[in-house]
This record gives sequence, structure tokens and C-alpha cells, in this order.
Amino acid sequence: MNAMKLYSYWRSTTSYRVRIALHMKGLAFETLPVDLVKGEQRAPDYLSVNPGKGVPALVLDDGTVLTQSLAILDYLDRVQPEPALLPDDPIERAHIQAAAHAIALDVHPVNNLRVGGQLKAMGHSQDDVVTWMNHWMSEGFTAFQSMIKTDTKYAFSDKPGLADICLVAQLYNAHRWGADMKPFGRLLEVEQACLALPAFDAARPENQPDAG
Amino acid sequence: MNAMKLYSYWRSTTSYRVRIALHMKGLAFETLPVDLVKGEQRAPDYLSVNPGKGVPALVLDDGTVLTQSLAILDYLDRVQPEPALLPDDPIERAHIQAAAHAIALDVHPVNNLRVGGQLKAMGHSQDDVVTWMNHWMSEGFTAFQSMIKTDTKYAFSDKPGLADICLVAQLYNAHRWGADMKPFGRLLEVEQACLALPAFDAARPENQPDAG
Repeated sequence: MNAMKLYSYWRSTTSYRVRIALHMKGLAFETLPVDLVKGEQRAPDYLSVNPGKGVPALVLDDGTVLTQSLAILDYLDRVQPEPALLPDDPIERAHIQAAAHAIALDVHPVNNLRVGGQLKAMGHSQDDVVTWMNHWMSEGFTAFQSMIKTDTKYAFSDKPGLADICLVAQLYNAHRWGADMKPFGRLLEVEQACLALPAFDAARPENQPDAG
Repeated sequence: MNAMKLYSYWRSTTSYRVRIALHMKGLAFETLPVDLVKGEQRAPDYLSVNPGKGVPALVLDDGTVLTQSLAILDYLDRVQPEPALLPDDPIERAHIQAAAHAIALDVHPVNNLRVGGQLKAMGHSQDDVVTWMNHWMSEGFTAFQSMIKTDTKYAFSDKPGLADICLVAQLYNAHRWGADMKPFGRLLEVEQACLALPAFDAARPENQPDAG
């Protein structure tokens, strides 16, 4: 049986989410880098893999291609249930997903590379784009911090899960772009706890084969 | 037992998604309108319900508040499994979620009211905002159309599910803003099949108590 293959870009925070989950669950995978800055996600060969023109894309043993990071995480949680990214209780899992989505839907999609590119095409500077990104991170982190627990090691419990995965990946961007993290001490605590774990560490952008 | 309450805005496509699912599953709910154009989502009373400053928010019988439309749909699918919004097979559900997310993550968050407002605060006109929205709809619909099946009544089968819900809600915006739908005949066919169903019809923006 071949290992799974993950089309990934080292700085892509959605790729980062999937890398964390694969390492948490002990699933072997080979990384196939796609250079988003060079536009490789728009090359015809890659479009046949993922018409959504993005990473990550996970290729299963039988060649099936899965796209969209949250859909891939749901798949991984079903085929390799331990450790679970979400609990079974309907209300608990809805709360954890809501926090994860405050980042994965309300921050990341508005801040990704193609949106920044579109803003520049409309005449905005890189400084404008950074201000834009930090605006949405500030809004999203405020919501996220109000939704998680205050007395747990990770966002919701003593085990890391979906909300932690989305947080840690987004915080990579926050640090990269100089977001003001002073109001978000709790998030930095959770980040520190997560990054001390081998699965999170192995998934870090700087530990990827295509890191620049 | 009290009925559930749904904080909703008639034109909010994320509220529309939850309304469809509640009607599909035959769950009674009372609509509590939140006027996003008047800024009611930022009022202190509402912030205590949803610090994410958005709709929908679903209040359960016991007062528990659930936010983020996709998290709410996951909750509803667990507590009222029939009709299912997603199948059990891990790969099938990943494919359907990926298509749903091509709209729910790659289109809607980039096009919602607050993003339009931010663009205007940066000096852009309403025409610029409409061009922006249509750009992302064109990209997202292209991806979505390439991901769904070509020979089924609804997006993936002979039963409507998560991908159909996300599509129909986004198409409301597409029609509202004059998106060019000529390349997307298959999506209009799926929309027509969905809107013929009582659950989708009852959830339509124009059939809400706060419709203007």
C-alpha cells in the first residue's frame, strides 16, 4: 500500500491544518509541494487534481483526491478516529466547530493569497493588504477567544482538537504579519501548549521540505 | 418544551442555509429577525448572544446558543438524522463537503456584508463591490460545477443535501447582484429542482417575516 500524498505549500495555513491532523493521527504521508507564489496551483496539471486552484489536496492510496481542508479533516476523523478532532456530543462539537469556523470561515478566506492579489489588482499596496489582514484577524481572534474555555490546557479541553488546529495555523500568519496579539494572551498560551507537541511541531511551516 | 429560536436576517445566505435544514428536518422554530443593514448584529444585547456579530444563531430549548451555520447544520444532522444532509461514507461525505466549502468558504466569507463595508471604507464604490462579489462567485461556481455530478437531480444524488443547501443560498446572492450565470446551467437546474421542494421554498428570503 502506498502512503497518502499531500499537495501542500509550506506557508499555506490550510495545508498546515491537514499536516497537523495527519501527524496527530500517526498517518504516513508524502509531501508534494505546490508553490503558490509561483502560481503552480493554476497550472493545468494541478487543476486536474484540484479545480479549486488551491492547496491542500490529499491523494488517497487508490488515487482518490480530497480537497478543502475542513472536509479532509472530517475524512481523517472518520477513517482514523483516534485521537479525535471533535467529540461525539452534538452540542460540544457544535461549539468547537463554531470557534474553529470563526477562524476558518471568518478570517482565513478573507485573508488568503488570492484575496490579497485581488486587492493589489484594485490598486492597493502591500501595506493596505497587511492592514486588511490584521483587521480580520483582530475581529476573528476576539470572537474565538470569547468562545473557548478559560481554564483548559488547549482551547476546549486537555486534548487538542479542531479549534486548536485552526488557531495554531492562523497564528502563524498573525506573527508573520505583525498582528497585535496583546489582547489575545489566552490564544498564545494555547499556541504554546500545542507547539510543544511533536505532531504540531512536525507540521510547522519551517519544518516542511519546501520551506524557503 | 419551547420551540427553537433562530436569529436570522432574511437576506443572509448563512441564515438561509439553516432555515432550509430546519424545514427539511421538520423542526419547528421561531424566527427572531436581526437587521444587519441597521447594524443590530453589533448591538450589546445581540453580542451577548453571538460575539461573532453575525447571524444565524440558533437558541435551543434549554437556552444553549449555537452559532456558525455549518456548525449548526452538523448539530441538526446529529440530533435529527433524517433526512441526512451528508451520507455516512467517509469519501462521499468529504466530496460533498468539499463542494459545499467551495461556496461556504471560498465565496461567501469574501462577499459578505462586512467585507463589502470594509471595501467601501477603503474608498471603493458600490459598483466595485459588486464586481468584487461577482469575481468570487464566478471562481467558486466554476469549481463547484466541476465537483458535482452531472446526471443527478440534485448536486450529488436524487436527494438534496449540504452542497445543494449552500448552492441555493449563494445563488440568491448571484441573482441579486446580476452574476453571469450563462456558464453555470447545471447549477440553475439544481436550483430549480431544490426550490420546487417545500422546505427550500419556505426558507426563501422573500418568505421570511422580516423580508423588505
